Amino acid sequence: MLTNLQLDRIDIVLVSPRNPLNIGAAARAMANFGFTRLKVVAPYEAHWREAQSAIGASELLQNATRAERLEEAIADCTLVIGTGTLARRKAEQRVVPLPELGERVGRELARGGRIALVFGSEKRGLTRENLSYCHLLTVIPTDPHQPSMNLGQAVAVCLYELATRGEPHSGRPGEDAVDVEQLRASSGELDRLGAVIEAVMLAASYSPIEMQAANRHDLRLLLRRLEISGADARRALGFFRRVLHKVGN
Amino acid sequence: MLTNLQLDRIDIVLVSPRNPLNIGAAARAMANFGFTRLKVVAPYEAHWREAQSAIGASELLQNATRAERLEEAIADCTLVIGTGTLARRKAEQRVVPLPELGERVGRELARGGRIALVFGSEKRGLTRENLSYCHLLTVIPTDPHQPSMNLGQAVAVCLYELATRGEPHSGRPGEDAVDVEQLRASSGELDRLGAVIEAVMLAASYSPIEMQAANRHDLRLLLRRLEISGADARRALGFFRRVLHKVGN
Repeated sequence: MLTNLQLDRIDIVLVSPRNPLNIGAAARAMANFGFTRLKVVAPYEAHWREAQSAIGASELLQNATRAERLEEAIADCTLVIGTGTLARRKAEQRVVPLPELGERVGRELARGGRIALVFGSEKRGLTRENLSYCHLLTVIPTDPHQPSMNLGQAVAVCLYELATRGEPHSGRPGEDAVDVEQLRASSGELDRLGAVIEAVMLAASYSPIEMQAANRHDLRLLLRRLEISGADARRALGFFRRVLHKVGN
Repeated sequence: MLTNLQLDRIDIVLVSPRNPLNIGAAARAMANFGFTRLKVVAPYEAHWREAQSAIGASELLQNATRAERLEEAIADCTLVIGTGTLARRKAEQRVVPLPELGERVGRELARGGRIALVFGSEKRGLTRENLSYCHLLTVIPTDPHQPSMNLGQAVAVCLYELATRGEPHSGRPGEDAVDVEQLRASSGELDRLGAVIEAVMLAASYSPIEMQAANRHDLRLLLRRLEISGADARRALGFFRRVLHKVGN
């Protein structure tokens, strides 16, 4: 099982949850498996208030942090994992079946990273834009005839996998120590780097202005595919700032 | 993942479920992971009818079989697995943490057995008598501060474990073939054997009549601990019938 220190480095993020019962069920599953950090993105106001004020609503719901956009909620995370099915579209990022996710999370914890596990709204799941902020997409191996899980149950199943199979492998002492060269760039660092590269693209007239949104989307995915370290992201940021300074003149 | 043939040898049993939403959630989790055989024991009549007639209630709920007592529902099963926590009492049977249950189920499937996974009512879980029919008790590794899971979520987590890690190990051809000497006695066969042994105990004035209920309980547990094969159970049944005939005269 994961230690409290490790559990503190895993955020559970609900994007636009709607049903107060589902929000409560997600919070209960978190408590069952020892997770405490709940973040909510752009919740439906009335439903969120109802969930928070429900009789028996947990401390965890009271202490949930709130953001208007997904990228704010996950800015300090080095591994952002989206959840969903592949029923409707081809994934634009790596897909990891849930039974292999515990091991992947264990590696990230061993490296000193911070993880976000992101769930979409009951109706639509995560949008294509939400997913562009995810390093990988995990898929629960459900039956093709009934692939879509209830939110509370999906959260329970994912957290069971992480809690029971997400332990860092290395038994070496100081496994919670951070290896600076190994530690992945956080989502916020990647966004800062992406913004400067986008500015360079524009300044260099790299492609027609109509392509700006599509280029931004592709660049966001690319930067996450690279699994670049934080140190390298900062080096690249310095370089592209220098380039921007030159190109901009 | 399990094949349909393997899934057909796993029964999901709900004992006295109360909340129609939970019954529906359990059925949904079954459909998500490809399970189809639902059995309900002594349900609360009105709640069960409500669950079955809910809009969108699955075929699986319509086709659920129903029994008044647990032992009827599981009579043809060779491995009966109770679910629950150890918060309130010491287990009287082997305890298998859920992350190890998939492997155990895989072995039983390889041997040609039939499995029941039994869930108690939301309020009380399985009674001591219910549990005396179980070969083992599986425990979901939850946080000691919030050990008790919602029924629908507990079903989802258990079925995820079985569906993803319950494959029979042996890749040998004919893995679905039954090895008669290896195949465990079914719960019904054990009950028949137990009844004759109990009759012998009484006929032989083995212990005071006040001890009859306690002896029956202990005998039921003992017979399940032995993991006796069906063939051996039938041999023992013949032997004890002979003894009863002699002692009874």
